Amino acid sequence: MVDLVTSAEIADAFAGIRDVVRTTPVLPCSALPSRTPLLLKAEHTQLLGSFKIRGALHAVKAAGKRARRAGVVAFSSGNHGKAVAYAAKALGVAATIVMPVTAPAVKVEAVRALGATVHLVEPEKRETHPKELGERTGAVVIHPFDSREVIAGHGSIGLELLDQVPGLGTVLVPVSGGGLISGVAAAVKARRPGVRVIGVEPELAADAAESHRLGRLVAWPEEDTGRTMADGLRADRLGELPWDHIRMLVDEIVTVSEEEIADTLRQLAMAAKQLVEPSGAVAAAAMVHRRAALPAGGATVAILSGGNVAPGLAARVLAGGPDRPAEPARPAASRGVATS
Amino acid sequence: MVDLVTSAEIADAFAGIRDVVRTTPVLPCSALPSRTPLLLKAEHTQLLGSFKIRGALHAVKAAGKRARRAGVVAFSSGNHGKAVAYAAKALGVAATIVMPVTAPAVKVEAVRALGATVHLVEPEKRETHPKELGERTGAVVIHPFDSREVIAGHGSIGLELLDQVPGLGTVLVPVSGGGLISGVAAAVKARRPGVRVIGVEPELAADAAESHRLGRLVAWPEEDTGRTMADGLRADRLGELPWDHIRMLVDEIVTVSEEEIADTLRQLAMAAKQLVEPSGAVAAAAMVHRRAALPAGGATVAILSGGNVAPGLAARVLAGGPDRPAEPARPAASRGVATS
Ligand SMILES: Cc1ncc(COP(=O)(O)O)c(C=O)c1O
Ligand SMILES: Cc1ncc(COP(=O)(O)O)c(C=O)c1O
Repeated sequence: MVDLVTSAEIADAFAGIRDVVRTTPVLPCSALPSRTPLLLKAEHTQLLGSFKIRGALHAVKAAGKRARRAGVVAFSSGNHGKAVAYAAKALGVAATIVMPVTAPAVKVEAVRALGATVHLVEPEKRETHPKELGERTGAVVIHPFDSREVIAGHGSIGLELLDQVPGLGTVLVPVSGGGLISGVAAAVKARRPGVRVIGVEPELAADAAESHRLGRLVAWPEEDTGRTMADGLRADRLGELPWDHIRMLVDEIVTVSEEEIADTLRQLAMAAKQLVEPSGAVAAAAMVHRRAALPAGGATVAILSGGNVAPGLAARVLAGGPDRPAEPARPAASRGVATS
Repeated sequence: MVDLVTSAEIADAFAGIRDVVRTTPVLPCSALPSRTPLLLKAEHTQLLGSFKIRGALHAVKAAGKRARRAGVVAFSSGNHGKAVAYAAKALGVAATIVMPVTAPAVKVEAVRALGATVHLVEPEKRETHPKELGERTGAVVIHPFDSREVIAGHGSIGLELLDQVPGLGTVLVPVSGGGLISGVAAAVKARRPGVRVIGVEPELAADAAESHRLGRLVAWPEEDTGRTMADGLRADRLGELPWDHIRMLVDEIVTVSEEEIADTLRQLAMAAKQLVEPSGAVAAAAMVHRRAALPAGGATVAILSGGNVAPGLAARVLAGGPDRPAEPARPAASRGVATS
């Protein structure tokens, strides 16, 4: 039986996190007015620079007594790890963040600075190590996307948007494991089923777009998804719970090229004055470069999901030379690996 | 007799421009919470990328029939010129923007693209040419700061802040000719006299700070003020009407160095994800680098007044090397030139 996250769960999550989490503003996409409103949900100005704190805080809270006794554990070299570390600290819970040995030292230090213990492991152990640790110590594993609580927390963005944008027509959401879009879709479709929720992926990591098209969950080889500059969107497949939300609730998933992501990073900086990380620009890239393919009617909002960009990359993009984009993706058919 | 802009004039101006002008958001200054709220008023996300449209639109409106018959004229190589051109177009009024022959072609084209006629003149003629043009053709001169209407329009920022920040304690405002701070101070002090309004200037163009300290309006040589990287803050003196507002209403004027401006540009980009022009970072520079000298109590808001930064400069600042700052200012005493 398919048991999607309900609007009541999302409203509960929102009520429990709103003291800590910021209500982020909705900004116009350009320096000039446009005919139909093109808007940006500024989650890159969220606490810690990404939306991840919403789901992480609710999930650590929901982990309750067991977490207070035995702590929480999460795998991530990126935004999820920081968010779990911060949430645990705010709630007085011990956190272990499992990071790949390949993670840059600056990211490891950022997580330590938030009070978490860091375990460095070989990348292959990123799923098994937290699981074993949980089994051995009783620590609660906080999954980055395949979790009801994480999805419910992220859903608070949908509630804010319904409030902030009265004429909402379309929401564009970046997709990796699918936790963010699941929460947004569950929140928005429950109250306004006519609002379109559209996922956006890099062409180089378009497993969710392919899954949506085929109607079954496919994975892509990590050597493929690892090539996109959008380093928050490299998951090789959707989570099972997100997949249920996506096939039931999401209208479409579109893809954007590396050049389009880099160009959008630059346009967001120069026209909207917003600095985002590549993953955070992907939804806006569809707004800028897929206008004709998107449904008309109502305001279109792209979620700027994160801003944790390295200064050097930001400087190179602004200077006009995006990082050399990876080679184009091979045709999807040759890559899809069925998983369910 | 001193006749300051009244809160009724500001409320009128606000009512007349709010269909066009954006209510800009107030953002947290950092990626993490701080003990006392440090906030940023995001006028760099305003229409055309700076606060200038507020005063320009109200002033062109107020110029009424004469403007509709004979047009408006303004001198500016920067934000004011664009704002007057846009306002005139929105109101169906002809605009002539007088620009120095030294203005970069891209700025000239931006003003032309907004439908204005451009007159290129020698920099010395920037005051006389618009005046002569006005006398000859009947066109109404829209002064960038020495104007009741411009001040009243800018005052709308103060009204928004009173609304947006309930615990408002201090507002930090960049100062050049003084139109912006005059409007903000008039709006804020009328309704909440306890809120502190503090001006911020580059050390290299600190004529207003010196005037405030001495209690009389002094000018600085333009060779001096021209050295700051904050190119919107190079006016050699305050306007007469702004000076009346500043001496009556402004609590203090502090200064920041070129290094502090460049460092703040970088911090705003990396921590708050906001890209601003150097002039737009000056008020925030006082928040970041003059914390100890600022009054405590209540929320502190810095106005990010503009975002029209050249991509190359933004890239260099992010890459870590600010433009080589100008040599330090000579002692103020040797520079002040009394004007009133
Ligand atoms: C900045 C950013 N945007 C989007 C996503 C995608 O979120 P999800 O995995 O829930 O689809 C991530 C995930 O890490 C992210 O860091
Ligand atoms: C970005 C920016 N900030 C601040 C100012 C200062 O405004 P005022 O001359 O009214 O003091 C200007 C003036 O051009 C500006 O362009």
